[in-house]
Amino acid sequence: MENIKLNMSRRIRRTPFTNKVEKCGVSDFTVVNHMLLPKGYRNSVEEDYWHLNKYVQIWDVSCQRQVQIFGPDAEKLVQKMTPRSIKNMETGKCFYIPIIDENAGMINDPVLLKLDDDMFWISIADSDILLWAKGLALGSNFNVNIIEPDVYPLAVQGPKSEELMVSLFGEDIKKIKFFNFKIFDFLGTKQIIARSGYSKQDGFEIYFKGFEEHFDRIELGEKLWDTIWEAGQKFNISPGCPNLIDRIEAGLLSYGNDFTKDNNPLECNLDRYCNENDNHEFVGKEALKKIKLQGIKQKIRGIIFEGEPYYPNGKLLNVFSEKNNKIGQITSGIYSPSLKKNIGLSMILKDYWDIGQNVVIETIDKRKIKGVITTLPFPK
Amino acid sequence: MENIKLNMSRRIRRTPFTNKVEKCGVSDFTVVNHMLLPKGYRNSVEEDYWHLNKYVQIWDVSCQRQVQIFGPDAEKLVQKMTPRSIKNMETGKCFYIPIIDENAGMINDPVLLKLDDDMFWISIADSDILLWAKGLALGSNFNVNIIEPDVYPLAVQGPKSEELMVSLFGEDIKKIKFFNFKIFDFLGTKQIIARSGYSKQDGFEIYFKGFEEHFDRIELGEKLWDTIWEAGQKFNISPGCPNLIDRIEAGLLSYGNDFTKDNNPLECNLDRYCNENDNHEFVGKEALKKIKLQGIKQKIRGIIFEGEPYYPNGKLLNVFSEKNNKIGQITSGIYSPSLKKNIGLSMILKDYWDIGQNVVIETIDKRKIKGVITTLPFPK
Repeated sequence: MENIKLNMSRRIRRTPFTNKVEKCGVSDFTVVNHMLLPKGYRNSVEEDYWHLNKYVQIWDVSCQRQVQIFGPDAEKLVQKMTPRSIKNMETGKCFYIPIIDENAGMINDPVLLKLDDDMFWISIADSDILLWAKGLALGSNFNVNIIEPDVYPLAVQGPKSEELMVSLFGEDIKKIKFFNFKIFDFLGTKQIIARSGYSKQDGFEIYFKGFEEHFDRIELGEKLWDTIWEAGQKFNISPGCPNLIDRIEAGLLSYGNDFTKDNNPLECNLDRYCNENDNHEFVGKEALKKIKLQGIKQKIRGIIFEGEPYYPNGKLLNVFSEKNNKIGQITSGIYSPSLKKNIGLSMILKDYWDIGQNVVIETIDKRKIKGVITTLPFPK
Repeated sequence: MENIKLNMSRRIRRTPFTNKVEKCGVSDFTVVNHMLLPKGYRNSVEEDYWHLNKYVQIWDVSCQRQVQIFGPDAEKLVQKMTPRSIKNMETGKCFYIPIIDENAGMINDPVLLKLDDDMFWISIADSDILLWAKGLALGSNFNVNIIEPDVYPLAVQGPKSEELMVSLFGEDIKKIKFFNFKIFDFLGTKQIIARSGYSKQDGFEIYFKGFEEHFDRIELGEKLWDTIWEAGQKFNISPGCPNLIDRIEAGLLSYGNDFTKDNNPLECNLDRYCNENDNHEFVGKEALKKIKLQGIKQKIRGIIFEGEPYYPNGKLLNVFSEKNNKIGQITSGIYSPSLKKNIGLSMILKDYWDIGQNVVIETIDKRKIKGVITTLPFPK
């Protein structure tokens, strides 16, 4: 099970950084938005976790594809796509937004970037929001142009990321606040750099544009990688990827793993991004109001559990009550070397979601081990 | 490069047959529609090719997800989604249909099944047509219900498939014509069986429904697998998957590999499924008409090329003219043991697409080898 190869083909798209990633000794990939996402190099997840906590890493997260919405009705369409109000969103801001369907089922949880009053990028998790946005716009006769631009995010993450980025792009890097972006020059090209990333460390995401004139996409991408890599040597830079231990400790959710289209945003603790009492219209508004009125039946919680160190393999552990009712499944879980316990995320039924509730985890080989419901992010 | 692991998580969905696939010794997976597709077992692609040509194989193609469109406006919506006229489509038929966007760019090439006048399944290639269909329907205020049902296609392919299927489901299996389906009983559940499949051999696809009452999805799926497996012993059954040699020889296209959203259906030789002079309305009609009027600039052709046996690794070979102009890329290619030559599919520029045209293929290590343009399917 652990050693099954990924079969490569053009459909599983390479990125401008894939050659570099291979030279760095990538050992595991996954596929997100029909594109390669590195998931491991020579080190263990635990070694990478400690490194990410102390130094700086470079991550090829090109699979965070952008859906570019441009034109007179751009804001109207984006607003129709999310329960979060974007009325007061300013250019240069990043907003985490739930995207829901007509039943209030989650179909993505991207980061929205406002590039201009009539220009947005939606930096997506693993579902084809390009098709969703186009379908909605066509059906509604909105005056917008929607494309997937040649943009390939490259993340620089870890406590040394600011120092590294300042050494390359100057002191203005420090002025980028969390979930904001600014435009910087790289070899005469304009590149968007945001203070953000899929870790609980400080970090940046460079929305690398490979479509500038006079440049080959891969050539320019590799120059960017090399520039960061060389400047990163004195900060002990290493190649990396979203780290499962760090992500779960931080309570950062993963679409397709911790929730799916069968879940609504309230079950995902996204209440604060659901402005359904605002007067803006959005797909799923009636369904969401109804769910809020009736109350939800389950929500995502953290679980700390005993037993030998747990490493996931795609098969899910079931969660039971002490009286042996099935109450959830560990959708993302791993051993935390900081907490010296196993940690996991699970959608948990209402009667059992209180903090401190004792639960029982069933291992793949059917052993029962003790667990307890906890807050997210996990307590240190 | 060849030994990179696929990182497993819930997001890369398992199927009701994945346990069985693992027990059969699967060595490679790919990911299609956020779901595992086996791509190799213990044998080489060439050994599997010869086996598929002589005997019968069982393929887990659950990743061919269904988009179920049901309701008073179902036919109207499906017709809006494709340039192929479905006016005369009868219940029980399967239609291969291009799905295009407003620019006539291909966004999928599924098989459409008509289950009833107000009920269709779209059996999709690798893109979220569920979101496209829902977006269009919502924007257009169509009265339809759209879901991804619990249906997991299981293919039985190869010259012995009819005999095997008759031994399980009776003589009525013989009455299913190519690209038609009928309903059969399996342990008291109703299952749709079509004469179809992604090979040039005879074969069937069982649209396994895992949502019948009184059955656990995995339990029932594994019973179906075991039943076929046991009855298949006397026909020398083996686990398999879409075979790259067989597929390319047959000229069967793969969405994401041989064409993308940047290609129109005419470039993909799908002219006969483009009824743009019909009076039905569909997304992309104006764009398609314009492209037809102007004429296309490239189209998919077969290429036979020399050199040592070629095995793909996700990096594409460039195709040049004899005067060294880049004219295409081998998007799917492999050594054919029948033809004793390398064969490939490529989108080829107009000036070079004539059958018999000499071309030059550049290998990954930059050697130049001779090739020639040929028809599809490849001549025997």
